[in-house]
This record gives sequence, structure tokens and C-alpha cells, in this order.
Amino acid sequence: MSGKVVRNIERAALETIDGLGACGVATVHEAQGRTGLLGSCMRPIYPGARIAGSAVTISAPPGDNWMVHVAIEQLREGDILVLAPTSPCEDGYFGDLLATSAMARGCRGLVIEAGVRDVRDLTNMGFPVWSKAVFAQGTVKATLGSVNVPIVCAGAVVNPGDVIVADDDGVCAVARARAAEVLEKARAREANEEDKRKRLAAGELGLDLYDMRGKLEALGLKYV
Amino acid sequence: MSGKVVRNIERAALETIDGLGACGVATVHEAQGRTGLLGSCMRPIYPGARIAGSAVTISAPPGDNWMVHVAIEQLREGDILVLAPTSPCEDGYFGDLLATSAMARGCRGLVIEAGVRDVRDLTNMGFPVWSKAVFAQGTVKATLGSVNVPIVCAGAVVNPGDVIVADDDGVCAVARARAAEVLEKARAREANEEDKRKRLAAGELGLDLYDMRGKLEALGLKYV
Amino acid sequence: MSGKVVRNIERAALETIDGLGACGVATVHEAQGRTGLLGSCMRPIYPGARIAGSAVTISAPPGDNWMVHVAIEQLREGDILVLAPTSPCEDGYFGDLLATSAMARGCRGLVIEAGVRDVRDLTNMGFPVWSKAVFAQGTVKATLGSVNVPIVCAGAVVNPGDVIVADDDGVCAVARARAAEVLEKARAREANEEDKRKRLAAGELGLDLYDMRGKLEALGLKYV
Amino acid sequence: MSGKVVRNIERAALETIDGLGACGVATVHEAQGRTGLLGSCMRPIYPGARIAGSAVTISAPPGDNWMVHVAIEQLREGDILVLAPTSPCEDGYFGDLLATSAMARGCRGLVIEAGVRDVRDLTNMGFPVWSKAVFAQGTVKATLGSVNVPIVCAGAVVNPGDVIVADDDGVCAVARARAAEVLEKARAREANEEDKRKRLAAGELGLDLYDMRGKLEALGLKYV
Amino acid sequence: MSGKVVRNIERAALETIDGLGACGVATVHEAQGRTGLLGSCMRPIYPGARIAGSAVTISAPPGDNWMVHVAIEQLREGDILVLAPTSPCEDGYFGDLLATSAMARGCRGLVIEAGVRDVRDLTNMGFPVWSKAVFAQGTVKATLGSVNVPIVCAGAVVNPGDVIVADDDGVCAVARARAAEVLEKARAREANEEDKRKRLAAGELGLDLYDMRGKLEALGLKYV
Amino acid sequence: MSGKVVRNIERAALETIDGLGACGVATVHEAQGRTGLLGSCMRPIYPGARIAGSAVTISAPPGDNWMVHVAIEQLREGDILVLAPTSPCEDGYFGDLLATSAMARGCRGLVIEAGVRDVRDLTNMGFPVWSKAVFAQGTVKATLGSVNVPIVCAGAVVNPGDVIVADDDGVCAVARARAAEVLEKARAREANEEDKRKRLAAGELGLDLYDMRGKLEALGLKYV
Repeated sequence: MSGKVVRNIERAALETIDGLGACGVATVHEAQGRTGLLGSCMRPIYPGARIAGSAVTISAPPGDNWMVHVAIEQLREGDILVLAPTSPCEDGYFGDLLATSAMARGCRGLVIEAGVRDVRDLTNMGFPVWSKAVFAQGTVKATLGSVNVPIVCAGAVVNPGDVIVADDDGVCAVARARAAEVLEKARAREANEEDKRKRLAAGELGLDLYDMRGKLEALGLKYV
Repeated sequence: MSGKVVRNIERAALETIDGLGACGVATVHEAQGRTGLLGSCMRPIYPGARIAGSAVTISAPPGDNWMVHVAIEQLREGDILVLAPTSPCEDGYFGDLLATSAMARGCRGLVIEAGVRDVRDLTNMGFPVWSKAVFAQGTVKATLGSVNVPIVCAGAVVNPGDVIVADDDGVCAVARARAAEVLEKARAREANEEDKRKRLAAGELGLDLYDMRGKLEALGLKYV
Repeated sequence: MSGKVVRNIERAALETIDGLGACGVATVHEAQGRTGLLGSCMRPIYPGARIAGSAVTISAPPGDNWMVHVAIEQLREGDILVLAPTSPCEDGYFGDLLATSAMARGCRGLVIEAGVRDVRDLTNMGFPVWSKAVFAQGTVKATLGSVNVPIVCAGAVVNPGDVIVADDDGVCAVARARAAEVLEKARAREANEEDKRKRLAAGELGLDLYDMRGKLEALGLKYV
Repeated sequence: MSGKVVRNIERAALETIDGLGACGVATVHEAQGRTGLLGSCMRPIYPGARIAGSAVTISAPPGDNWMVHVAIEQLREGDILVLAPTSPCEDGYFGDLLATSAMARGCRGLVIEAGVRDVRDLTNMGFPVWSKAVFAQGTVKATLGSVNVPIVCAGAVVNPGDVIVADDDGVCAVARARAAEVLEKARAREANEEDKRKRLAAGELGLDLYDMRGKLEALGLKYV
Repeated sequence: MSGKVVRNIERAALETIDGLGACGVATVHEAQGRTGLLGSCMRPIYPGARIAGSAVTISAPPGDNWMVHVAIEQLREGDILVLAPTSPCEDGYFGDLLATSAMARGCRGLVIEAGVRDVRDLTNMGFPVWSKAVFAQGTVKATLGSVNVPIVCAGAVVNPGDVIVADDDGVCAVARARAAEVLEKARAREANEEDKRKRLAAGELGLDLYDMRGKLEALGLKYV
Repeated sequence: MSGKVVRNIERAALETIDGLGACGVATVHEAQGRTGLLGSCMRPIYPGARIAGSAVTISAPPGDNWMVHVAIEQLREGDILVLAPTSPCEDGYFGDLLATSAMARGCRGLVIEAGVRDVRDLTNMGFPVWSKAVFAQGTVKATLGSVNVPIVCAGAVVNPGDVIVADDDGVCAVARARAAEVLEKARAREANEEDKRKRLAAGELGLDLYDMRGKLEALGLKYV
């Protein structure tokens, strides 16, 4: 099942991708019907980054980062590398040399359900990573994996070309074919939230704003 | 057992609360006889915050944040929301809209044995949160819980009106009735530590400062 | 087996230690043949610190920090305290008073497979700590342990006098006797990487730089 | 706060206790309004045991089992030891000698949010234990704790004299004052379930038995 | 995205399913190219069960088992229920009443990335379950999920109608369309292993049987 | 550092080994001064096994079991395989074929800080394993490791030829050179315990048997 590299993958339009990135993970996740979210173990190596891009996926053996080199050749401007090991592993698959190479190909960041290292250098370079671990343990280059095949990363299905949105809240994958629709919903959500934010800031209660009192009473909520 | 909101809870005096906040978690925890500390899974979403306030407690079903809206109405200036789910859950119960609403009611922060989202916005707003997870997964509003009932949050009992102290070391709950006494002990501890700090900084050893050498020798410590 | 303090331990030369510190954990770990790395649970309390020093080791009972006081007397300029509990524990063995005392003796930092507290003060003091937990729970002083005996800390063997290197990637122990040789290899590695970094930044692919295409093809990698 | 032993605690009637034991954890937990359950980390050392008894509680320092000896003197026929360490610990506080002593005093089992050892002997003796870990690491006897004070064990409040029910599903604490009422509800629940069990076994669907179809349709469930 | 029940799903032939069950998880997983395995957190509630069946999938909200009732209506002889919560949850979604109902519909077992309860009864009934937790905490029936939609369960994609194989080694999902082919490969693998088993039992070494010595020497293995 | 196989290792006398096995892990661990215990994550695949043997150690890359084949050639009657991966891994390194081969060489069991599979077969064969996980995920044979070098397994140092004792309580390593001395202490401990067991069974309290009342009172224990 391993040993395959898919060269030509479809990607969403860059305006759509950037629009989703501007909305952020929490909004995009809601707009997509609460699907596509990666597990909470995926944490950024530094705070404040917010990116979106097209997934170039990597399925890699435990402790073997050979396929990262293969994947980098497949990168285009605006892509994000997304790596899932074939069995649980927290080795440091990726460091500053690979980041240098990926950045030279237009890569916007890395999402990896494993470890990363050289995080001080990566931070200084402004190359964001969301990972399960920070771990200096290196990897070998001995066994094949695959590039641009469907993977499950931190519990979420990621297909090559899916839009990845990542920020301090975590990482969300948006199906490529639905990206434009999800963006539209996300923007509607944002507009709607802006009004609510003002009313809540002015002291109006969610109980009234969302008209909840009747339903709560019907279910039996008692004030004592 | 669910579906109860207690409206009128007693709170400690605000000067006591603020005094405890100034002492910080480690000192307050010692001053209270090493009790009341929440588990180490409770981490701040950004470093440097140090707050104290009266607990408005929330017992919420897994994946359901309805009771947060109910609790916000019960907030007064100087309160802290403290949420424990009725079974383990890391969903994102709370984001920037709820924080906007809570801040408008005078809330100083959130302590939640579950997840939180919109952490970049919360950081920018200066609304501190101590949580078990950062997770964009949203919640529903379908099932009742309770507000201002006793809860167990991250292994510690929290009663409504207890003083919550939270900083980079974690979170500690101080029983309301003991708050003034604990503050006194915490301040005495601080005064005592100040002197020790100077002597230790000057190179005096703890072995001598605390007169430990004899006891260590009696227990059989050998230098080789 | 407890109750022993070894007074005179051998240390590596300070220039070797400082050289290793400048190389950082990931490079040193590679240079040492991928050995000596502590587990990924060991995280810094604040980002950006990079230190190296000679290990003064502490084997301590769970929840008992008495031996830290004993160990501080054994510190010399350029040392790092390395503590492993005799059974898993995340109590806060160490806070700002002990740090004050350790700094007065020339200590560069703490590596502890347990908890630490007063992390805001430690951050302000610039005293770096790598720990398994941040936890305000205090400890007692009732039972003996040992100082400067071999320990296993977060899965790695640490002998007294070993060189400890710690940065944002974690912590690595270098056997004292091999320190000079490892430094030489680490520097060679750095020099070698500098050239690769330039070529990768210019867009050259790792596939070509490392001459991987033939081996990948031989193992059966298919492009589709 | 430590160093207290409460000698005379109230207990529920033995028939009530035994009745609750016969109902089992899942039923009792439901009957009590889904409260009192200890966390799922509490697992039995061997399958098939089902016990109930009055809690004799122990608050013990990490790695120190001195208070277990103190608690054993407080045991009466039908009691269960319930131990919570004052900070997280998985040391083996309890083995076959302590079990021999506890059984001689009428103890029915142990619930411990820490470790246990000699599990083969305990199994052969028929002394059931629910614990967070099996770990041969021994403990010391150096520091005081307390006996028969309120504790939080695996996230649940346990007061001395509460009824503890434990089986393959875990452990549940029933407030002593409510024990008779909870038993009544548990038995009603069992009777009610017996009828349902027969109808379900005969092929009737829960959808019909509980009259769910209308509500599901109203909420928008679609069959495709 | 929720609130959908797919009534008619395709299933593999029962002889194929039973053939895969007889091969067991480890062999089937290898035969399928090392794909489809659920995470190691999925453990059987009792040892010795080995089953295979067609997946009837359930996507359920955290702490809400309403969809299990809906799914049971969709069961046919030879099916296995496979449940993934929409966010991490270890509540006890399933107990002996649901098992009674599922068995009456021909269900062979349950695979659930959450909790299960009444495990003593389930064991006595011979209804096998692979779960992430055993937990008596009950669930509500308030929010919709979906039945027979694709899910990710413990890190593996499961489509409705996929063949699920489960035994003491864990759980593996086989794509329905590939089931016959995987069975053929699994049987070939078994036949091949039988011969090897005899030779290894007779003392022949794997080093010779698999002709490894040359390759090991070429890579530099040294005997000292 | 990898790629080394040490052929001739020293072993303890078989009577000593078997004597230690008869004492069991908890007693041996105490007799050795509470050292040598592996972490509590190491659990037996079936209850009731109690073995002792000489360690043939394996340092293996993550997800690569090639060195197990190499190690089997080094086995002698009475040995135990002890495997530590070079980075955390829970893949199934070992199954029934390797067990068949190991048993043919006189191997008594396996201790592995990783995964194992075919556990039903291993149970039926009576080949005991203590592992961190049960996981059907297979491994490759692509990278060298080492055999009979010192390793750290689940937090404990294991040297080749050390005596491994394993039972339901876990696993303990006894330094070869100290094996006879530890056995003597373990037997003394057992003899001593036998007398205590009788007195405790007769109802004597540990408080009196160990003469603890005075010390407890001196430290301030209060009965209320």
C-alpha cells in the first residue's frame, strides 16, 4: 500500500484558502458543520500563527522521514505539509533544514501527528508547526511511505488538496470541494457574531439574546 | 440532581480576595495547609496572568455549554467562572463571545476542566482562562446542568463563593469561610520568605538556614 | 541504597560544556549517535533558554525535596541540578527560594522529572527549568535520597558530571568522558549543515542534494 | 490539616449496604442521579468482584502508607478502605500483609487512587482492590496524613461512612444519608429494566419501547 | 451534517466475513497491507473473543447514546456496531439492555471509541465489546447524530458495510470491496506461516529461514 | 552506536535466578533496596505468570523488529528477551512465530517497552509477555539496532545478564553481580513476613506489631 507519490492534485482557489485562514479554526469548524477538526493533541510550537493552505499529505513509517523529502518536491506556493505516521510516533521528523527547503518551495507550515525539532530556529524563521510533540529524537531514511494519498491525521481524514486551517485553537481540514461553500458560511457566521458581540459587550445576556429562558424553564430549570 | 441555579451566594470580601491574588497560588496553597489545589492538567492559555475572584460554579453535561449562559447572569464584579463537566470532556465550551458577555458582567476569568477556544481573541482581550485543553470543537445547548452548586473541578472541591486564585502555577480554591485566615497566613509566609530569600541570595545554605544537618545525619546520610 | 552524597565528582571542561550548549540539543543528540535524550515529557517553563552544564544528580523520594537542599551545597559554577524521583511524581519540588539559593552557588538551571512551582518568579529571575509538570503542590522533608549517584531521568541515564544540554527541543545528557569528542562531531555537523542550508534555501531539493532518487526507485517508489 | 483520626463515624445499615451492592455500580449511579462515580482510571485487579461497604477514608502523603496502618484499627465488619493521596502517586501502598490485617478486621476491599502490589496474592485471598495502578514500588512511613476525613478520590467526594459500591464497571460513592433512598430507586430501576429486557430480547425496538420516533423526526432525523 | 440514517448499505458475503474472522486481526491487518487498524486504546472487555461482521456505523454526540437505538433497527444478522463520538468521550454509551436488543437483531458485538458499562452482564451474555474505557457514567438522549455514515474510529476510517475483525489483539477494518481479496491474502499468509512455525519450532533460526545474515552484514552489524 | 551484537554475556546461576523468581517482584524489589523496578505501564498479557531469567537485551529502532531475530540466536535456556525501542513506540514487534522460535531456544518470556500481538496464541502457548501495549501493527526489517548492550527499559537500567523477575505486579531487574545477595535478602524478608502474616491474621494490629504508636503521637497525630 506504500510507495506511491501522486504528482498532480487539485487545489482550492487561493482566495478561498486565504479567506478561510482569515476566519480561523473555530469559525471554519462551525461553518463546516463541526467536522474536520484534528485532535486537541495538535499544538502550535509558538503562539499567534494563523495559516491556511492546501494539504500535501505524507503517510510515513514510524521514525522515518524519507517521504518528507519526496513530498517537498510536490509543494507549490500556498501548500501545507500534513504528516501522519503509520503507527503512533513522536520522533522529530522535521527540523530547520527541511523547513528551509519547504519554505523555498512556498510552503506555509507543517501539521504533523508526531514530533518536530529545532523549534527555536523554526520560530525565528517564522515557519509554523502544529505537532503532537517536540522531540529531538531523529529519524532514519530506510522505508517507503506515500505522498498525496488520503490519511487520517490526529483523528481527522485529510485528502490531498484539502484546505488546512491552523491557528492557536488547533487545526481543521476542509474538504476541497466544499471550500468555497464553507467560506461563505464562515463569513456569514462572522458577520452574525459581530452584532452579537456588540450586544453582549453592552451587557445584554445570552439568555435573552438567544431567547433561551422559555426552553430552560420547560426543561425544568429551577432558580433557588 | 441537575437543573438548579442558586442565585444568592455568599462571597468573601473583595480586599481579602485581592490580597490572596497578590500572594499567588503556591503561597496560598501552602498557607491553607496544602489543600484546595486543582490538578496539574489545568494550564493557563497565556503566561503571566494572576487573578483571584469568587467562584460561580457550573456543573455541565459533556459537550453542552448551555449552563454557561445561565451562569453569566449570576456573575458579579470580581467573580470567576469555574466549570466542571459531569463526565470527562475536552470540548471547547467557551470562546470570545461568552468572554465578551462575562467581562461585561465583571468576570475576571474562567477555570474549566474541559476545553476552550478562540484563545487568540481571549488573549487579546486579556481574559485569562485555565483549562484542561484548547479545542475548537463546539458544544450544543440541549441538556440542563446546574449553577452555583458544589463541584469537583480537576480533583478539588469548589463551593460557590469560594475564593479562586490562579496564576502560572495553576489554580487553588480557598474555602470562603477561611479566606481571611488563609490570607493572614499567606502574608506571614511571604514576610518570612523575604528574609530567607536575602540570606539564600547571599550564599547561606538551606542546610544551615533550616538547621537540617543534624537530622540528616541522624537518619544516616553519608558523605563520600 | 539511599542516603549517600558523593562530594567530589569529575566535570568536563567548561569550554567543552559551553561549546555543546551553543550547538543545542538536536545537534548534540545526533552527534552522540542519537543517544542520551530525555523523554519528550520534559518541557521548558519558558521558551528561548539554551543552557549546558555539569549534572549534579538527585535521587529523591516522591513528594520529598530534602535532598535538593543537600545537593545545592555540592553545586559549583556551571552546574545543572538533575532530579529523578524514585517513583513517578509531579509534586512541585522546587520554587523561587531554592532557585535563589542555587543561583547563588552558580547553578545554571534545573532538569526535573517531576513538578516545579513559582514559575513566574523563576521566569523573571531567568532561572530555566525543564520539568514534567508545573504544579504548586509542595513537598515534605522527611526521607533520605541520594546526591551525585547515577540516575535514570525521563528514560535517560544521567551520571554525575555528565554534560546536560537543554533548550526548546528538550534535554540531552552527554557522557562526561565523551564530551570533547561529541563537541567535535557536533561542530562538524553544524558546518556541514550550513552549506546544505544555503543550497536548500536556493531551491535545491533534498532528493538531489542527498542523492536519494536512485534508492527510492530501487525500493519501488512510484510516481502517478 | 493533616494528622487527624476520626474514631466514631456513622455508617448506613448493613442491609442497605448489601442491597446497594447487589444492584451494582451502573444501577446505583443512575439511581443517585448520575453522581458519585469515581473516574474510569479505577480498575479492579481481578474480574468478577462486586462489593459494597462503608468508607473508612484515608488521606495519605505521596509514597507514604503509614496512615493505612492507622486506618485499619478503625475498621469494622463491612467496611471498605478508600485512599486518596494528597498529590498524584501510583506507588504500591498496599499488599498482602495489609490485606491480611484488614480482612482480620472485617474489611471487604480497598479503593485506592494510587498503586497496589502483591496482586496475585490478593487475588488468591479474594481481597478485591480497585486501583489506578498495579505497581510494586513500595512506600515509606515518615509523614502524617488523616483518617476518616472527607476526601476526593478519583474525582468524587467520599465522606467517611459513605456507602461504596464497586464492581467490574468501577466504583460509586453513595452519600450515607441518602443510602436508603438510593437503594429504593435502584431497586425500582431494576424491576423496570427486567420488563424492558424481556421485550427487547423478544425483538421489540428501543425506538418503539421508549416511544422515540416522533421526537427524532421532530428534531429532523432523516432516513435515506 | 448530523441527523442522517442510511438504511440500505452493502455488505460483504458472510463466508468472506467469517473467513476473515477466523484469520484474526494481526493476519488480516498484514494481508491488507498494514492498513485499517484501530488504535491500541481499543481493548476487549473480556479475553478470548474473536469476531467478524459488517459495520453498522454510528456518529454520536459526546455523552448521548440516542443514535444507538436508531442504529439497532438497521442491524442484520452478522453485523457489528461501530461507534465514534464526535468529540473525545468515555461515557458508558452501552450496557446490557442495549446488548439484549442488539443480540435479538443478530448483532455480533460492539466496537466503541468511548465507554461501556454492565461489563459483567455483557461478559455473561457473551456479547463482546472493544472499547476505550469501561465507565458507568450514563448518557442522555437529546441530540441527533448519524447512522451508517463514514466515521473515523480510533484513528481508522470505517465505512458502513466494511468488515470489522476483532480479537484480543484489537480491531481492524477491511474495506468491503477488498474483503474477498484480503481474505485470500490472509489465507495465503496463514498457510505460509504454518510451514515457518514448524521449522522455527524445530530450532531453525529466523536469521537463516529468512536469509537475513547477508543483509545484516552489509549494513554493518558487528558481532563482538 | 547501533549495529553491535555481544555474543558472550555472563549470567547468574540458574538456582539464584529461580530462587528470585519464586520470591516475586514485590519482594525482590524491596530486597534490592527499592531499585530496578520497571514502570507501571508494563503489564502482563495474561494473569498468573511468574518468571525469572537472564536478560538478553535488545535496542531496536521504532517500528523495526529485525534485531529480535538477531537476539534469538543469542538465547540460552533460562533467558528472557528485554526490548527497549530507541524512541517511544507501541508497534507489535513480536508475535507467535517469534515466540515459537524463542521457546525453541529455551526462552522464558519477553519484556518489551512497546507492543506485542498474537496475544491469544501466546497465551495458549504459555509464553508470557510484559508489554506497554497490545497492538497488531506490524514492523519492518530495515534498520540495525543492537543486542546485549545496556538499555533503559520503562525507566530502569537493564544490563545484559541481569536477572529479570516478572509477575502480576510488573517487572524488576536485579544486577547480575548482586543477584545472590538479593536472593538472600529476599528470602529473609519472606521468612520475616510469614510470622507477621500470622500475627496480623490473628487480629494483631500493625500499629502494635511495628510499634508505631509512639512515633505517630510524637509527630502530632490526634484521635478525635
